[in-house]
Amino acid sequence: MSLIVQKFGGDALGDKGKGKARNGDEPLFGAQFIADKFAHIAQIVKRNRDAGHNVIVVVSAMGDATNRLIAMANSISGNLPAREMDMLMATGEQQSIALMAIALEAAGVPACSMTGSQVGIITENVFGKARIRDINATRLEKAIEEGRVPVVAGFQGATEELEFTTLGRGGSDITAVAIAAAIKADLCEFYKDVDGIFTTDPRVCADAHKIDRISYDEMLELASLGAGVLQSRSVEFAKNYNVPLHVRSYLHDGPGTFVIPEEKEMEDVVVSGVAFNRAEAKVEISGLPDRPGIAADVFGRIGEANIVVDMIIQDSGADGLNDITFTVNVDDYDQALDISKTICKELGGREVIGNKDIAKVSAVGVGMRSHANVASRMFKALAEEGINIQMISTSEIKVSCVINADDLDRAVQAIHKAFQNDKKAATV
Amino acid sequence: MSLIVQKFGGDALGDKGKGKARNGDEPLFGAQFIADKFAHIAQIVKRNRDAGHNVIVVVSAMGDATNRLIAMANSISGNLPAREMDMLMATGEQQSIALMAIALEAAGVPACSMTGSQVGIITENVFGKARIRDINATRLEKAIEEGRVPVVAGFQGATEELEFTTLGRGGSDITAVAIAAAIKADLCEFYKDVDGIFTTDPRVCADAHKIDRISYDEMLELASLGAGVLQSRSVEFAKNYNVPLHVRSYLHDGPGTFVIPEEKEMEDVVVSGVAFNRAEAKVEISGLPDRPGIAADVFGRIGEANIVVDMIIQDSGADGLNDITFTVNVDDYDQALDISKTICKELGGREVIGNKDIAKVSAVGVGMRSHANVASRMFKALAEEGINIQMISTSEIKVSCVINADDLDRAVQAIHKAFQNDKKAATV
Repeated sequence: MSLIVQKFGGDALGDKGKGKARNGDEPLFGAQFIADKFAHIAQIVKRNRDAGHNVIVVVSAMGDATNRLIAMANSISGNLPAREMDMLMATGEQQSIALMAIALEAAGVPACSMTGSQVGIITENVFGKARIRDINATRLEKAIEEGRVPVVAGFQGATEELEFTTLGRGGSDITAVAIAAAIKADLCEFYKDVDGIFTTDPRVCADAHKIDRISYDEMLELASLGAGVLQSRSVEFAKNYNVPLHVRSYLHDGPGTFVIPEEKEMEDVVVSGVAFNRAEAKVEISGLPDRPGIAADVFGRIGEANIVVDMIIQDSGADGLNDITFTVNVDDYDQALDISKTICKELGGREVIGNKDIAKVSAVGVGMRSHANVASRMFKALAEEGINIQMISTSEIKVSCVINADDLDRAVQAIHKAFQNDKKAATV
Repeated sequence: MSLIVQKFGGDALGDKGKGKARNGDEPLFGAQFIADKFAHIAQIVKRNRDAGHNVIVVVSAMGDATNRLIAMANSISGNLPAREMDMLMATGEQQSIALMAIALEAAGVPACSMTGSQVGIITENVFGKARIRDINATRLEKAIEEGRVPVVAGFQGATEELEFTTLGRGGSDITAVAIAAAIKADLCEFYKDVDGIFTTDPRVCADAHKIDRISYDEMLELASLGAGVLQSRSVEFAKNYNVPLHVRSYLHDGPGTFVIPEEKEMEDVVVSGVAFNRAEAKVEISGLPDRPGIAADVFGRIGEANIVVDMIIQDSGADGLNDITFTVNVDDYDQALDISKTICKELGGREVIGNKDIAKVSAVGVGMRSHANVASRMFKALAEEGINIQMISTSEIKVSCVINADDLDRAVQAIHKAFQNDKKAATV
């Protein structure tokens, strides 16, 4: 008998927008549509209970509920106090837990809803993105002993003074992992509208296939690929507390992807996945004087503007001048370009060239540590497709290349194909 | 400087159904419609603050929110656990307090939302209709000291184990009165879509006018008239704790009706108001044996079916037989009739006659205690209109008559007119 934490997101409880199709009059409360969703999840939980497991359920707010609440607040004021927003947001998950508990009881599963405060999730006194300080699992343990399924509100906690707080982006996933860690669960399952983590995006590469097992570190590197699947904060949390994760579909009972501590045989897989990011843009400042402190100057100024820089390349040319190239999220591109132009002028650089039509493609795998030539095999695959590499960046388990945005799909396909056979051998 | 509790109901925060007219796409969240409502209330609160008062705001759930949540739960299960329903219901008021606090801040009024649990409303451990055990006003007092307006969620509390509870029908009014009592507020105001308590329903009697001051006891007797205005539970609460109430309109700044402890001059007004109830039905069991215990038998059986009986008349005829006549809410009529027929047969009575086409009209006023002939003046007013009285019931400050439903409007007008001059003199 295992103890499993099962987390169901907003899409499992009421697809965004789709509710409307069933009941045009009441988008949020398309009652039968919502009822079907809850009944379906109740059956998943029941199946696990019937198989002899103890289950703790964690739920998000239904579908668009959170966005609707934000829209409503925005229409009242342009200045939203964080404390009041957390008070407002917390209601989304609270509705979900009550309805989920009702659905479980209707399916014959004794259940008991619990808010973040009731479940003992104590956070720091920061609104909107509080970090969990402690979890007092007494009440959870008591409910399980009594044979009931605790239904826990994701995304929320409370300070010691009982102020409502929320955990920020990906908060419901973090709730699930944190509870699994606190109560020493055997597994933390994430029920999604996908089958698991894929080697790459199947929409880009038809050969993409589900990964059976992947390490925390690989999952973290794949986060850009898996952004819609798992948030990196919750993977980091799982890694720190050694909580095995299982990303699976709520649409069928088949296994998904286990995200687990690194195993010896994982190194046999050279490349676990091919990730990519279309939302990057590149800025190049050329002809800067080649003296210490230039890079610190440049990125100090960029950082002050709260712009997160991804890749950085500095190239000291034969001319005794420096070229600095970096990538940022495309949303920050205009601002980064402006700042760069100012800096360039101040430091007496030559020019600033920006490029929004780029993309980043990355090969990720713990096998890289023990296999030589991964980078060169990747470059060769791109070269054979006639794809030019603009920037390269590597880590212990990742190689990333910046290329022309138009080449991205072909690049993903080529890299995926190049390492596919290594992988297939290992995933047997 | 006074301390005032101001309560705003669901109609003040988003009229039932009317939101739809403004934004057909999103009935619950017709954002601009809702925003206007909150901004309007914020101005009322601000006006009171600017006048130098300390204010505590109590709010209900927005418009139809509670009904929508119930509909959603009903579509999931036919069997709704009371604990989970309270968990669900509590979110309606929680959304209101957060949005209200946001609206107040936007209007430049420092505010702070508080759930029932945070405000220290401790209830007994009963879901759906919990009674308040205690209010710990520390947090309220602290917020007021800090110059902030506490915005309190009506209708809800928490047990000592932090279980969410709701206070049942009229619960938000009770929250307001209970807080006013706990914090020794100078006044508890109810902002409604009416100008106050009227001498009778203006739709029935054009001469009806707003009452300036009325005693708790009169207000309780008028509860059937004022059902949509104030719940009797909250009036009882106010009476027990001596909390002055002020029922007024949120549409303008004029004074409404003060509901206060009885004052000497109130007795000058013989009849404060004319109340009526169309939702009654009458059952007569005739020819019952005239022996002790018959009435107990009859009403014991009616009570077992959870039917509340209003008026009762027992008439021992010259034939040595008993006639028992009583009225019930029209919803309970069929069941009451069935039970009465069974009892009549068992006890050897003659027959059971039912009548749904009746109505009750009542004259209420503390002045009756010191003025003779009120009942006879009322009967005379009805007689002059040719209206037949079927049943009569009196209390210290009330005379009620059951009449033919078709005669009701004329009866109300006649009684109102008969006592109007007494009243007008007093309300100067």
